[in-house]
Amino acid sequence: MDLKVMNGLLTPKSVAIIGASSTPGKIGHTVVKNLIESEYEGSIYPVNLKADEILGIKCYASISDIPGEVDAAILTIPAKFVLDSIKECGEKGVKGLIVITSGFSEVGEKELEEELVEIAHSYGMRILGPNIVGVLSNSDKFNGSFAPFLPLKGNSSLVSQSGALLIGIDAATFMRGVGFDKLISIGNMSDVSFADTIEWLDQDDKTKCISLYIEGFKEGRRVIEVSQKATKPIIGLKSGISAHGAAAAASHTGSLAGAAKIYEAAFKQAGIIWADDLNNLFDRTLALSLQPPMKGDNLLIITNGGGVGVLATDAAEKFGIPLKFAPEDVQAELKKHMPVFGSAKNPVDLTGMAGTEWYGDSVKYAIQHPWVDGLVVLYCETAMTDPLEIAKGIKNAIVESGVTDKPVTISYVGGEKSEEAMRWLVESGIPAYGAPDLAINAIAALREFALNKENNKIKTVDTKGIDKQKALAVIEKARANGRDALTEIEAKQVFEAYQLPVTHSKVATSEDEAVKLAKEIGFPVVMKIVSPQILHKSDAGGVKVNIKDEEGVRSAYQLILQNAKNYKADADIHGILVQEMAPMGTEVILGSVNDATFGPTVMFGLGGIFVEVLKDVTFRVAPFSKKQALEMISEIKGAPILQGVRGELPRDVDALADAICKYAFMMLDLADEVSESDANPVLVYEKGEGLKVVDARVILKKK
Amino acid sequence: MDLKVMNGLLTPKSVAIIGASSTPGKIGHTVVKNLIESEYEGSIYPVNLKADEILGIKCYASISDIPGEVDAAILTIPAKFVLDSIKECGEKGVKGLIVITSGFSEVGEKELEEELVEIAHSYGMRILGPNIVGVLSNSDKFNGSFAPFLPLKGNSSLVSQSGALLIGIDAATFMRGVGFDKLISIGNMSDVSFADTIEWLDQDDKTKCISLYIEGFKEGRRVIEVSQKATKPIIGLKSGISAHGAAAAASHTGSLAGAAKIYEAAFKQAGIIWADDLNNLFDRTLALSLQPPMKGDNLLIITNGGGVGVLATDAAEKFGIPLKFAPEDVQAELKKHMPVFGSAKNPVDLTGMAGTEWYGDSVKYAIQHPWVDGLVVLYCETAMTDPLEIAKGIKNAIVESGVTDKPVTISYVGGEKSEEAMRWLVESGIPAYGAPDLAINAIAALREFALNKENNKIKTVDTKGIDKQKALAVIEKARANGRDALTEIEAKQVFEAYQLPVTHSKVATSEDEAVKLAKEIGFPVVMKIVSPQILHKSDAGGVKVNIKDEEGVRSAYQLILQNAKNYKADADIHGILVQEMAPMGTEVILGSVNDATFGPTVMFGLGGIFVEVLKDVTFRVAPFSKKQALEMISEIKGAPILQGVRGELPRDVDALADAICKYAFMMLDLADEVSESDANPVLVYEKGEGLKVVDARVILKKK
Repeated sequence: MDLKVMNGLLTPKSVAIIGASSTPGKIGHTVVKNLIESEYEGSIYPVNLKADEILGIKCYASISDIPGEVDAAILTIPAKFVLDSIKECGEKGVKGLIVITSGFSEVGEKELEEELVEIAHSYGMRILGPNIVGVLSNSDKFNGSFAPFLPLKGNSSLVSQSGALLIGIDAATFMRGVGFDKLISIGNMSDVSFADTIEWLDQDDKTKCISLYIEGFKEGRRVIEVSQKATKPIIGLKSGISAHGAAAAASHTGSLAGAAKIYEAAFKQAGIIWADDLNNLFDRTLALSLQPPMKGDNLLIITNGGGVGVLATDAAEKFGIPLKFAPEDVQAELKKHMPVFGSAKNPVDLTGMAGTEWYGDSVKYAIQHPWVDGLVVLYCETAMTDPLEIAKGIKNAIVESGVTDKPVTISYVGGEKSEEAMRWLVESGIPAYGAPDLAINAIAALREFALNKENNKIKTVDTKGIDKQKALAVIEKARANGRDALTEIEAKQVFEAYQLPVTHSKVATSEDEAVKLAKEIGFPVVMKIVSPQILHKSDAGGVKVNIKDEEGVRSAYQLILQNAKNYKADADIHGILVQEMAPMGTEVILGSVNDATFGPTVMFGLGGIFVEVLKDVTFRVAPFSKKQALEMISEIKGAPILQGVRGELPRDVDALADAICKYAFMMLDLADEVSESDANPVLVYEKGEGLKVVDARVILKKK
Repeated sequence: MDLKVMNGLLTPKSVAIIGASSTPGKIGHTVVKNLIESEYEGSIYPVNLKADEILGIKCYASISDIPGEVDAAILTIPAKFVLDSIKECGEKGVKGLIVITSGFSEVGEKELEEELVEIAHSYGMRILGPNIVGVLSNSDKFNGSFAPFLPLKGNSSLVSQSGALLIGIDAATFMRGVGFDKLISIGNMSDVSFADTIEWLDQDDKTKCISLYIEGFKEGRRVIEVSQKATKPIIGLKSGISAHGAAAAASHTGSLAGAAKIYEAAFKQAGIIWADDLNNLFDRTLALSLQPPMKGDNLLIITNGGGVGVLATDAAEKFGIPLKFAPEDVQAELKKHMPVFGSAKNPVDLTGMAGTEWYGDSVKYAIQHPWVDGLVVLYCETAMTDPLEIAKGIKNAIVESGVTDKPVTISYVGGEKSEEAMRWLVESGIPAYGAPDLAINAIAALREFALNKENNKIKTVDTKGIDKQKALAVIEKARANGRDALTEIEAKQVFEAYQLPVTHSKVATSEDEAVKLAKEIGFPVVMKIVSPQILHKSDAGGVKVNIKDEEGVRSAYQLILQNAKNYKADADIHGILVQEMAPMGTEVILGSVNDATFGPTVMFGLGGIFVEVLKDVTFRVAPFSKKQALEMISEIKGAPILQGVRGELPRDVDALADAICKYAFMMLDLADEVSESDANPVLVYEKGEGLKVVDARVILKKK
């Protein structure tokens, strides 16, 4: 990232408006007006062929006529004039182009957009847009957009792929009391992408939290990379996650993917915090921009009402930080600040009699106690207490405690006085919400942030012994035969080159050879048809298992051959695979898709009904660490199966995690060659006994 | 329900305040003040031994001194004086007692509370409370509580089990713009319960929707009954659904239950709409109190922004009313009211250029179209349009359409002008929300209401051929032997008496008899130990399957006997069961718990890992219709298994639903005798082939 150029684009010290207009209502007029009304302190250069001035500001006929430097040009002229205009910008030395103009790829004009980027890049300029609302920045007093005003001031910055939503949010900031420093409309993302804005906002002093409204990433893998490197919390609302949005995918594995699941996985890997909906984006942004991460799981709730306490308890479990009872010493101390019928367990119920003092004393003690990692304070408005007084008491207690590295969120249920108190709290840096579950959800986001910070670094995959050249040679040979699908034996050779344990197998081209191979491998054996045209071998009657002797081998050889011919008369039959019969184990499946957004992406699940009926699978974008692989194994619903059920011993989860990592690395390493693959089934044995890939499938990219 | 008495309690024409006080801040003072300030038009009689008047109203030394009739008495005196006082109330002919006073069962004074109820009932009086805030009614200008003021006026009435929350909600109504006609604090529910208030509110003219905040029902079964009969929408927020709240249950079945799942089932059966949290209770109440039910699944979304449209699409799938494309004719007509780059599919995107006219025309056309069952209109604030104008355009279009039986909900994303427009909409009878998913969630509640209306009538269970006496005779015999657990063969006799198909079996008490029985039944057979002390027979080595001949029977007989003795030397062995070996089928399990709140409750799930690992089970309170049983079968995650997977034919779901109904009826019919039971496994065969209960267990209530 060229910081100077990006700064010029997003926080310009001087700006030209190409297409500035004297006619109120036109976007070229609105932008000039907005710059003036936002009290922008940089230079404003309206560019208009005919006008001498617009809204009292001197106009220029062309950008080249502008006397001073121009950091950014805001374009509002029709699409057909844009290319000529940006060449002039380039000659002038403009750093960034804010292209509000629409009529590019969103209406099918893809080439025009590509040309736009090409020209801009040839001059070293970056482009925001086209088809955007513009850029708004409170700290720069810069409303370089046609949104009516700067948003409420705040610590977070929002990047939105929807312009209409950005304008709506802009206005909504005041009603919701959730402010932003910057609003960036990202539109068609012809050049500057989510990844670019994340990278830039992470180094922007004025931004404490990065909020995203996403319809779809263009370069998903880079978003993951820059997000992992970012030091600030990032929260994203991804729209289009319903089935309507998921593309139909051809392969068995693909059909289980769907955009939503892969985005969820990518968010996890990137350390981007998930927002469920628009309100949730606002609510979590508020907490993430005001409070520190929650470093442990010990949440304490203090309340004056049992009802909201119970609702908060339910929410704590729902949002992943289930309550524990407070330790004895905490209970004993807190008991001093409540009537006898109160409760100090957790939630700490100070009862409806609680006033400022009890709240203050409890909060101060609790936040200082080493057991407490985070605090949620609940208040139900009563006739006897003043909501603002309570708020001040809580704030003072936190300040007096001297504790700044533990988060606090608050919920008030009440009327106007409570609303006022909540506004005061937010302005004082403490997020406050109108319902108990919201305060819990907000602190859960701070817990997620802390966990992400621990987890989101890619650990190196152990690539020792991996022989890429060997895999490529197998692929090359298949291609030389004019094939896009590897045979099972070829696929297993590729898997073996990536250190994945496969069942031992060889191809026989005669009955006698089959007998010889079976004796070498050792009985019992499995026999399977080998033909590039027969991928679903069982359906074709091309598989026989548990063959115990020579006679069995001979009759299986005949039968498989006959079945294959009946199934597909013109199939090119390479021979019959004779394979070691793997002992029984727990069936799992590995699969992959080459996701349009994220590239090679790995699927893991238990075999059989788990994958077929329950769709109980999980995804990660390749590559990933063993820790992530262990997370995959533990997050499927059938996870207990691998821990050993019904008296079985635990499976070799460690070896499985290794294999998943290596499989992911393989899919990435061979991404230029392989479009998809799966290993199904993989049999996992008891702890220490490893696993075996029993069947493997590899489909090559068409070249 | 004695309507006159309940009216006297909840909408009194005259009220005595026992414990009225001259001291500001005391509850007895606040209540009198609140009655005056709410402009209550009935007679107010403060009762106080010493004072002549309170707040300008004549006082009486005793309730018997009051000259006129007294409908309700509000008690604020200490608990120890309550009993004497209510006797006087009884003598005076008071109808209802609003007992604000605390210090009863909530602090362990259970007997005092029972006495309270006993005395009240002896005079025909009903009790609300004790330990409550009171009763508030806008239409009666009656604030008979210590909550500071009447809530914002609205069409719904709220019953709350938490007093503090009721006061908080009271104040919050004004900020949220969601009003109530009545707020009823229900406290300890010593007498008047949720069921009573539902029954009464359903006949109350001023109430269009019944909203409940529930910590726990006292008489769950009656709540289901009265809710099913109710004609108005009922919505409930149940708190305490997290694991912390679920009671530890002893039996295998019980451990899968947990309060939350049973409450969810009971809500479904009762037709009570579920609220996820406090905001959701407000949001859904608003829609249910203002709009008609949505009678079909065809939801149309009209928007001026793609972003909010996509968010609404996601929400529609999440909340159970996934979008379909609008029919061709609808698309063709709507296309006339938008620019070329708009979309008429669904969501209908009028684009940011949409003004009042386009919105109006689209809404009017859409709501009249027979395909459309419900309409959600979304608006993102723009600089070019006036939110209130748009709102008025939408409202006019609805009025002009003449359609009143299809629901409409609205979402605005914007600032102060949008808030104002939303307030106008709500006052005009159209629910409006600050985020697109909320408008969808609200209309989903109206869809649920319509479905509940269709579903919530109990259909009679087919009891033909059921022989309760036969079942009781088996139970009687076991009791006569001093046992609380039936043997398998006894359990199956009970099941058979309720028309449940069980595997044919007989008990042998000698090896020779076993051989004889096996021959009668036909090979292969299963043999099992029969002993009241050995319930987990497999664990004891007490089961042998697939016994094919006489020799097998003899050796199995010896082995099982030996194993049983090793397992439990002093076990009372009744013999060895010889049983028809049921052919393979799909394993399901039926179980039951005697829930403390709802009584006999039935669990259904697939067997094996589905129940053990995935806890994939579902519940219903007994009895229920076949329709409900079919719903149970279809709502488990493993449902596709019964539809036939991997080339298998569909299972006999019809016979299974019948069996679940009969099992539920049995559990209810024998509720006085049986505490729990299960059928595990039950094997379900192909469509038309029925099912077999292979093993049955019945535990009797201790007497």
